[in-house]
Amino acid sequence: MARYAFASDNVAGAMPEVIEALSAANTGAAAGYGEDHVARRAADMIRELLDTDAEVRFVASGTAANAISLAALAQGHEAVVCHEHSHVATDETGAPGFFGAGMGLITLAGESGRIAAPTLQGVLGRPDQPHWQSPAALSLTNATEYGAVYGGAEIAALVAAAKGAGLKVHPNAAAAGFDVKSIGRMGVDVAVLGGTKAGSTPTEAIVLFDKTLSRRFGARLKHGGQLVSKARFLAAPWIGMIETRAWTVRAAHANAMARRLAGLMPFQVIHPVEANAVFVDMDEPTLERLRAAGWFVYRFIDGTVRFMCSWATTEEAVDELGAALKAVV
Amino acid sequence: MARYAFASDNVAGAMPEVIEALSAANTGAAAGYGEDHVARRAADMIRELLDTDAEVRFVASGTAANAISLAALAQGHEAVVCHEHSHVATDETGAPGFFGAGMGLITLAGESGRIAAPTLQGVLGRPDQPHWQSPAALSLTNATEYGAVYGGAEIAALVAAAKGAGLKVHPNAAAAGFDVKSIGRMGVDVAVLGGTKAGSTPTEAIVLFDKTLSRRFGARLKHGGQLVSKARFLAAPWIGMIETRAWTVRAAHANAMARRLAGLMPFQVIHPVEANAVFVDMDEPTLERLRAAGWFVYRFIDGTVRFMCSWATTEEAVDELGAALKAVV
Amino acid sequence: MARYAFASDNVAGAMPEVIEALSAANTGAAAGYGEDHVARRAADMIRELLDTDAEVRFVASGTAANAISLAALAQGHEAVVCHEHSHVATDETGAPGFFGAGMGLITLAGESGRIAAPTLQGVLGRPDQPHWQSPAALSLTNATEYGAVYGGAEIAALVAAAKGAGLKVHPNAAAAGFDVKSIGRMGVDVAVLGGTKAGSTPTEAIVLFDKTLSRRFGARLKHGGQLVSKARFLAAPWIGMIETRAWTVRAAHANAMARRLAGLMPFQVIHPVEANAVFVDMDEPTLERLRAAGWFVYRFIDGTVRFMCSWATTEEAVDELGAALKAVV
Amino acid sequence: MARYAFASDNVAGAMPEVIEALSAANTGAAAGYGEDHVARRAADMIRELLDTDAEVRFVASGTAANAISLAALAQGHEAVVCHEHSHVATDETGAPGFFGAGMGLITLAGESGRIAAPTLQGVLGRPDQPHWQSPAALSLTNATEYGAVYGGAEIAALVAAAKGAGLKVHPNAAAAGFDVKSIGRMGVDVAVLGGTKAGSTPTEAIVLFDKTLSRRFGARLKHGGQLVSKARFLAAPWIGMIETRAWTVRAAHANAMARRLAGLMPFQVIHPVEANAVFVDMDEPTLERLRAAGWFVYRFIDGTVRFMCSWATTEEAVDELGAALKAVV
Repeated sequence: MARYAFASDNVAGAMPEVIEALSAANTGAAAGYGEDHVARRAADMIRELLDTDAEVRFVASGTAANAISLAALAQGHEAVVCHEHSHVATDETGAPGFFGAGMGLITLAGESGRIAAPTLQGVLGRPDQPHWQSPAALSLTNATEYGAVYGGAEIAALVAAAKGAGLKVHPNAAAAGFDVKSIGRMGVDVAVLGGTKAGSTPTEAIVLFDKTLSRRFGARLKHGGQLVSKARFLAAPWIGMIETRAWTVRAAHANAMARRLAGLMPFQVIHPVEANAVFVDMDEPTLERLRAAGWFVYRFIDGTVRFMCSWATTEEAVDELGAALKAVV
Repeated sequence: MARYAFASDNVAGAMPEVIEALSAANTGAAAGYGEDHVARRAADMIRELLDTDAEVRFVASGTAANAISLAALAQGHEAVVCHEHSHVATDETGAPGFFGAGMGLITLAGESGRIAAPTLQGVLGRPDQPHWQSPAALSLTNATEYGAVYGGAEIAALVAAAKGAGLKVHPNAAAAGFDVKSIGRMGVDVAVLGGTKAGSTPTEAIVLFDKTLSRRFGARLKHGGQLVSKARFLAAPWIGMIETRAWTVRAAHANAMARRLAGLMPFQVIHPVEANAVFVDMDEPTLERLRAAGWFVYRFIDGTVRFMCSWATTEEAVDELGAALKAVV
Repeated sequence: MARYAFASDNVAGAMPEVIEALSAANTGAAAGYGEDHVARRAADMIRELLDTDAEVRFVASGTAANAISLAALAQGHEAVVCHEHSHVATDETGAPGFFGAGMGLITLAGESGRIAAPTLQGVLGRPDQPHWQSPAALSLTNATEYGAVYGGAEIAALVAAAKGAGLKVHPNAAAAGFDVKSIGRMGVDVAVLGGTKAGSTPTEAIVLFDKTLSRRFGARLKHGGQLVSKARFLAAPWIGMIETRAWTVRAAHANAMARRLAGLMPFQVIHPVEANAVFVDMDEPTLERLRAAGWFVYRFIDGTVRFMCSWATTEEAVDELGAALKAVV
Repeated sequence: MARYAFASDNVAGAMPEVIEALSAANTGAAAGYGEDHVARRAADMIRELLDTDAEVRFVASGTAANAISLAALAQGHEAVVCHEHSHVATDETGAPGFFGAGMGLITLAGESGRIAAPTLQGVLGRPDQPHWQSPAALSLTNATEYGAVYGGAEIAALVAAAKGAGLKVHPNAAAAGFDVKSIGRMGVDVAVLGGTKAGSTPTEAIVLFDKTLSRRFGARLKHGGQLVSKARFLAAPWIGMIETRAWTVRAAHANAMARRLAGLMPFQVIHPVEANAVFVDMDEPTLERLRAAGWFVYRFIDGTVRFMCSWATTEEAVDELGAALKAVV
């Protein structure tokens, strides 16, 4: 039977801290739709984590969290600027265009999933005209799809450029392990904080830094099919992850596992290993031998082969994979 | 502090069987997006429950489940026929129109939330013309928003009329406690089975009786923000509820609690108590006294006051409420 | 062969002034997409007609003009308040919901198509909540679908109430013959001025009183399929109609023809004859006799039978119809 | 004052044959919404022109014609395959995504705007999966954006490949001058025939070869804001263009003017001159000199400079431009 443990960070289950928090939240009656004490407490914790007074809402899907956030920042006849290999551009089956009433994406190239400031400037300088969708928002993913992490100065430059051109900014904190507190200080508008890939049951946090967006946001969520009634079960995992610091500690563990794997890797590592992913150069016959040996991993958009670690990855599993990799070289 | 226990069936937490099933599903790596063993087993159980070979998918929101199902049955320039007080018409913030690209609703009156066959026929007889949205699907809720339950013959007549006019049929099994096996035999197209209100953490099952609809349904879900990666946590609750028969037994309990409450009721009961709801005639000063006494319940669209029981409602709570009601008469 | 001349005001052709203006505009090369001299001149004339400095854009369809205007005023999770028998609610095949990403309509009753201020207030007083689409805009039609005309004080009260509750206002000037200059002074946001029914080839003017809406409005139009390249042919008819005063004079004629018809009418006239329509009480056998005599007219939503006059209606035709009506009584 | 005559084929006015047909159609009352005798006659003529029994509908905008046609062929969670520089991909402000509820575009490279069969095959071979929008339709433009024309065998191969993979096919006959009769024999589903650029006032014909699509197509058009009431004015131009053979003869003239211009061109002609466009290699200072000399033309997506001829282009204008070009080399 194929082993999927390194295929994605969503093949892992939920941290014990999450399951415990779900059980703890499961007592008595509670108001629905995020008006309950659990949702309030989880929102408080996220505000503290990000050092902000932003509004926080919980949804079940990262794709929906991104798409609804972007649709709140750009209109259908406008576009969102993003990396050409970003999740919103390549892995969400057109959800941004659907939630955004045909909203467009302007995709930019950039090394290891990072958008470089000059590339962004090139797009921002184009004149408005009725025949194309002018940029209204910038979507940034950190860590990137290639496991690289933007530095603080790098991201500040992008935000400043976007803001200077009148764009809104949507950071998608797809994995933990970097300085999330900085998000709140960057002047962004709506952030999405990934819960599921971090190690939770399905939950994502939408953080409305621009609080004018919170008007009728509940209606926006329900209209988009993202306002669940028993919302405490989307909120509770965050309590479990933040209160115990598991969100931070376990992300650091996943990142350490990726570095360990990179150290064992008999193939050329292509992208910086700054989060929980390792991308390598591997030819097709080798990948087939690896799969034949029982390890399932994906060839990614840029042609490299991707290995993902998660909160649940153990040193033993990494070492076992390392040995398997050496055997198929 | 206000007591919300009778305000809705979604104020209750999750059954212990659900929490146990979540824990049980939380072992090892599993493929994402519903391709895992937990999702397969839950789907098998639902197929057995409904005596069908339909495709089964799990989503986190009932509103989304309905809206996506209806959007698969009718196009934007067409309409869905439903009761004027149905959840899709009154309580989903326009989600059907959003997921359905402006798809319309043709709302019909009918006693206690039930559509009568002649009323439906009146709409089906209208000629197609380009200036209105002709009906393409019929959405039925059982039990209705007023806690009434369609009889088998009644519902068969509606389905036959709809099918005879070329419409698709979408039953929304919002609460348990009636013969769900009959759904599969009625010739319907897509059913939504409510998990959350039945007593689960957020999960709803979309049952594709018309299997031609299953083509690219995963893409449809992801496009609509409803394909969660760790789908096992939407599937597992169904295993917990069906394997232990809790879905049926606890629904029967909720219905019994509603009957018990109806028996204690010092106000006129307006709608048939056939599921887990009791609707009564109560003037505003009385409702205010009840709220002042700490019991929060809603005045519904038709002007009656609604009391909802759930799997978690106890005899003691019903009796306590009964006493409170007598005190405010 | 059936005579359709009184069936609608869109069965008439175009005024000679319009055809002449089309020919006059058909000289030499001109920039496309409304950037040409014809479009500029037509816009100037409309600004002068309405005594405003608003932005003016031309589209080919009244349904699209309304739907795109409303979509610029309300979001998908919000609603537009309108009369229950208004064109946007009953005769546009769901276009507002489509252009508005599932935007809802809150429909109000009101005599002869007019919304009364207290009825509007009833809706505006409802609290915001996530489960329904709260009102974000008010759409008013003048003359109404029943040929009644709002008085200045009446409409000012509606606009004031809407504005006081934070709504935007969209007047749809579906027929001429009333004081259009007043529109600009009312503080409305986007008006649609009907060209086609007034007697033009297909053209409608969108008047952006709120000039902040003009940002990227060309892109909004193109995104919605309403930015034609040879826009001068949508603009020229307005020059023909306004320069010659035909827009006003011929509308007055159509209204006079309706009054003449009302005077000849052997049936009870149900709605005020204040524009170009006459609605009467006529039973089905009589209507059938009228149709058998070769006159095709419609039974309207409220059960009355509608006769529409247009710029092209002659006194002779009215008198001939009058005689035919007497013959079928 | 800048001369726009070669900037686009939509800067030209309408042929005299079109204006005459508009006048001829402007007699008496006619049923609205395309149910009139003018629309029927125009549709008959197009059917004869294309040797088909297809349904024909008229709309005012080419962007809308394409977007509505594509939305009838692919669902929101699916995609349309097209050339990366096609009008639908680069010049319609996201209209396909809007009309198609977030429908995606899969854009392919290809010389001079043509898609090569092997490139198409590469996309068709991809497995369906829920994380991207699988192709459901192929959109072909002939002549291409670069003025190249697909040969019959070439286009037959593309249609066969698409059909073999279950895709629908949408040819967009953006300019005349090639064998349009072949369209009907290719087994395509919905074609758009360009009227405006050919030399008409705004009108485009949607030709429904797959007649099952004609069910409720009027409602689809109205829902999308494309069913004008006085539809005879969108239909009449086709009568004027086809009856007099102006559509064919004047297209041949425009193409001849392009060849004449190519013959005079002192710059390298980059794409085949097979229709009414000439694309040349011109550096920026030279283009600026040309503009300074009063001739406005566009630099196109591929970096070349585009000159468009139209039905209205005269030999004298071509020769004058030729001289101007020589002067700025």
